[in-house]
Amino acid sequence: MLSDRVLMGPGPSNMYPEVAMALQRPLLGHLDPDFLTVLDETCERLRTVFSTDSPATLPVSGTGSAGMEASFVNFVEPGDVVVVAVNGLFGERMCDVAARCGAEVVRVEEQWGRPIVPERVLGAHAGPKIIAAVHAETSTGVRNDVAALGAGKGSALLLADCVTSLGGIEVDISGWGVDIAYSGTQKCLGVPPGLAPFTAGPAAMERRVERPQSWYLDLGMLAQYTGPATGGAARRYHHTAPVTMVMALHAGLGVILDEGLDSVIERHRSCGEALQDGLQKLGFELFAAEGNRLPHLVTVTWPEGLLPSGTDEAAVRRRLLTEFGIEIGGGVGEWAGRMWRIGCMGHTARPRNVALLLGALGEILGR
Amino acid sequence: MLSDRVLMGPGPSNMYPEVAMALQRPLLGHLDPDFLTVLDETCERLRTVFSTDSPATLPVSGTGSAGMEASFVNFVEPGDVVVVAVNGLFGERMCDVAARCGAEVVRVEEQWGRPIVPERVLGAHAGPKIIAAVHAETSTGVRNDVAALGAGKGSALLLADCVTSLGGIEVDISGWGVDIAYSGTQKCLGVPPGLAPFTAGPAAMERRVERPQSWYLDLGMLAQYTGPATGGAARRYHHTAPVTMVMALHAGLGVILDEGLDSVIERHRSCGEALQDGLQKLGFELFAAEGNRLPHLVTVTWPEGLLPSGTDEAAVRRRLLTEFGIEIGGGVGEWAGRMWRIGCMGHTARPRNVALLLGALGEILGR
Repeated sequence: MLSDRVLMGPGPSNMYPEVAMALQRPLLGHLDPDFLTVLDETCERLRTVFSTDSPATLPVSGTGSAGMEASFVNFVEPGDVVVVAVNGLFGERMCDVAARCGAEVVRVEEQWGRPIVPERVLGAHAGPKIIAAVHAETSTGVRNDVAALGAGKGSALLLADCVTSLGGIEVDISGWGVDIAYSGTQKCLGVPPGLAPFTAGPAAMERRVERPQSWYLDLGMLAQYTGPATGGAARRYHHTAPVTMVMALHAGLGVILDEGLDSVIERHRSCGEALQDGLQKLGFELFAAEGNRLPHLVTVTWPEGLLPSGTDEAAVRRRLLTEFGIEIGGGVGEWAGRMWRIGCMGHTARPRNVALLLGALGEILGR
Repeated sequence: MLSDRVLMGPGPSNMYPEVAMALQRPLLGHLDPDFLTVLDETCERLRTVFSTDSPATLPVSGTGSAGMEASFVNFVEPGDVVVVAVNGLFGERMCDVAARCGAEVVRVEEQWGRPIVPERVLGAHAGPKIIAAVHAETSTGVRNDVAALGAGKGSALLLADCVTSLGGIEVDISGWGVDIAYSGTQKCLGVPPGLAPFTAGPAAMERRVERPQSWYLDLGMLAQYTGPATGGAARRYHHTAPVTMVMALHAGLGVILDEGLDSVIERHRSCGEALQDGLQKLGFELFAAEGNRLPHLVTVTWPEGLLPSGTDEAAVRRRLLTEFGIEIGGGVGEWAGRMWRIGCMGHTARPRNVALLLGALGEILGR
C-alpha cells in the first residue's frame, strides 16, 4: 500500500479535498462545451489570483518549468539581451533556459540566502529586452523585490517566476508592471504538479516571437485554443488539453477564491510564522535574510550538536517520513546536506500541520 | 453540474475506473521512495507495451505533442535532414516541429486517407539523419507501415508517432527497428491526457543532441531523474514530476497488463470492426483505405441524404452529445464538416458503447 503523507517539502503540498474530487470525476473531451466553460473559468480565476486582466492568461500544459520555458521561448530570439537576477537554483535555471533560446544572458548574482539588489539588476545593462527574476526562490526561501524591478524597468519586459509565490504571498502582476509571469500548481494553489499558470501582458504580446522554436509552447497557438486572447475569433485546437489537471486547477482556485485570496495569504503567513518561531525554539537557525524571508517556505540550518549524534540530516528526514509520514525537503546545490526546506503551502498550510511537524521534530531531537 | 460522457471521439477516451481511483489518492512527493517505486514500475510497464528494453523509456511531462517535440528536439540539430511521411494532420505537425529545430525537412506526401508508400519515403533522400512517420494517423484513421520503414532505414534513425496505436494495435518498437517513439495517455491506454510515453533506443541515444534547445524536454536530464538510463548513477531532480498523472498512467498500464496486452488489442479490434460494420449498415462510408484501416479510430463520410435533411453534420454531433451524452469527433483540415472520426479506445472499447452509438445514430437518422 502506498503512503499517505503530510507534504511539507518545497512542493508539492497536499491538495485540497475538492481537488481530489475534481480529479476523479468522469473525463470530458477537450472540445466539450462543458469543459470549455471550465477552461474559461480557470483562466478567469487565474487572472484574479495573478491580479491582471490580460487575455493571455492560461494554464500551460506542463509543470512550472514548462511555464519558465514558455516565458522565454515566446519572447527571446537569438541575440536578445536578457538580464537575469541569480540568487538561487531557479535563477540559475532561467539563465540556462534563456541561453538555449539564443539569448545574450547578463547575470547579476547575489549570495544564496540574500535578496537581489534591484538597483544592481536594473543597472546591469543599458537596454535589455528582458529583465528576469524569481519572486520566491524555492531553493533558499528568499523573497525578491519584483515591484522595484517593475518600477525601474524602463522599456524592458519584466519576467517573474511566481512558482512559489502565487496564492501564498501578495502577487500583483499589473500593479507591479510584470509583463510575463508563470507559476506552478503544486505549491500554494493546493493542486498536484502538472500545470503552469501563465500570463503575458499587452507589451509582451506585442513583442513576442512570431514562430518560437517550441511548437508545443507557441503562445500564439495556445491562445487560439484558450480563446479570449484572439479577440473573439473561433477557438482553434492546438494540442489536447490535459483536461483532468485543468479540472483540478479549476477546483483548487475555486477553494482559494471561496476562502478569499487575502485570507489564504494570511493563512500562509500565520502558519509560516508559527513554524519559524517553533523551529527557532527547537534550536534551528533561519537561513533566509531577515526582511526577505518567505513565510511559507522556511529554510533552516542547525548548529553543531542539534541533530541526534551519529545521524546525518538525511536520517532525520527519513525518520520524519517513515515514523510520522511527514515529508520535508533537503537543501540543494552547495547547501545539500546542510539545509532543510520546509514548506507550509496550499492545503498543508494549517496550524495542525505546524504543530505536527514541531512535535515530531521535538521527539526526534529529544527536546 | 458537469456532464458524464461516453467519449468516442479521436481522444480522449474514457478512463479505466482504476485510473480514477489512482488520481484521487493522497499525493506523494516527486522524490518520495514510494513514488519512485511507482515511477520505476511505470517505466517498466511502458517498456512492455512499447516492446522494448531500452532504459530511456519514460513518461514525458506533457501531452502527446510534447512527446513529439521531445522526439525531434533531442535528435535534430540545425541542418540535419529529416524525411517526414505526410498523409494527415500529425505528419504535417511533425514537419513544423522538425523545422523549428532547424531541420532540413524532406516531405513525402500521400493523399489523406491513403497509407504512406514505404519505398517512396525510403527513397526520398540518400542519407537522412531521421525518417519520421505517424503509425496511426488520428486525422484520417489510417495505419502506416512502420515496420517496412524500419527494414529499409539504413543508417537513419526511425521516429514513429504511436499516439493512437500504443495499446490499441500491435506496436513492436525493437522488432521493427524504431529508434524513437512517443505516444499519448488519452487514447488506447485509458488514462486522461497529460503525459507522453516516450522511448529512445541505443542508436538514438548515441546520436542525441547534447544540449537541446529545450531545457524542459532535455532527454539527458530527464533520464537522470527517471533513473535506469544513467546506468545506476544517482537519481537527480530535474523538474517536479506530475505525480498524479504518473500514478494514473501506472494504474492504466496495470489494467492493460492484468487483462493482457494481446487481449486488450483484440478488444480494440473486435469493437472497432463491429463499429465499422454497423456504421456501414447505417449507410456511412469508410474513409480510410482498405487494408490500412485502424480498427479503433474509424473515419466515415456519408452520401447525400443520409443525415436528416436541413441539419448539418455538427448538429447531429450536438444531438449525440446533448441527448445521448456521446462525444464523437468531426473532420479536420479540408475534411472539416465532411467527415467524422469515431474512436473506440481504452475503457471506451466495449461492445456496449458500440451498441449505444449505433442505436443513437439509428434513432437520429430514423433507420
